[in-house]
Amino acid sequence: MSKTKGLNCRSRYRIMSGDLIALGPGKVDLLESIDQEGSISQAARQSHLSYRRAWDMVDTMNRCFKKPLVISATGGKGGGGAELTPLGKKVITIYREMESKASQATQQEWNSLKKYLTL
Amino acid sequence: MSKTKGLNCRSRYRIMSGDLIALGPGKVDLLESIDQEGSISQAARQSHLSYRRAWDMVDTMNRCFKKPLVISATGGKGGGGAELTPLGKKVITIYREMESKASQATQQEWNSLKKYLTL
Repeated sequence: MSKTKGLNCRSRYRIMSGDLIALGPGKVDLLESIDQEGSISQAARQSHLSYRRAWDMVDTMNRCFKKPLVISATGGKGGGGAELTPLGKKVITIYREMESKASQATQQEWNSLKKYLTL
Repeated sequence: MSKTKGLNCRSRYRIMSGDLIALGPGKVDLLESIDQEGSISQAARQSHLSYRRAWDMVDTMNRCFKKPLVISATGGKGGGGAELTPLGKKVITIYREMESKASQATQQEWNSLKKYLTL
């Protein structure tokens, strides 16, 4: 239970498709984990999510996009695996770029606010 | 219980001071309400917050900034009121500017994502 020190500015982008969260920070982290681990269950463990929760998040993303972001294989060696589609990888890149551009664009405001904050 | 229609991209900026949320979308909305209503209790009602919750949010903001954002008077006609300090008003402006600049800066990415989303 470490305490966060100092000041920081966090931005969270949430893409809504109707009432569904098509994409948000947790889902993008999960996509990156699946890409690294090659498996939804291992990605879930790494992201401290239940398998069920991770699976639901993947299912929501796949339904919100015109093509799936993640393809999972059932059976086979090690009980099947999962991998990102080209669209899955592209979506990560676009989302991270969004965060990075937003952070750059708001640097001046963040510097102004910092002057007024204690700590 | 209205359903949100269509696609949208929401960004939330959260300013952390250690483990405290110095500023976020809910707190900035509350500041705007206090500015309009001239009272924490009326602002709380408008923002669907309990008085206690609104008061705690104001208290956290006031402690996170070097000078208070809200000054409240006790007693007097109508049981006292509350108003924003010049810093309180400035902080709203900076935060809204941050949101607007972030939104402009990420327009291209948002347009790219939209192409891949259903609905």
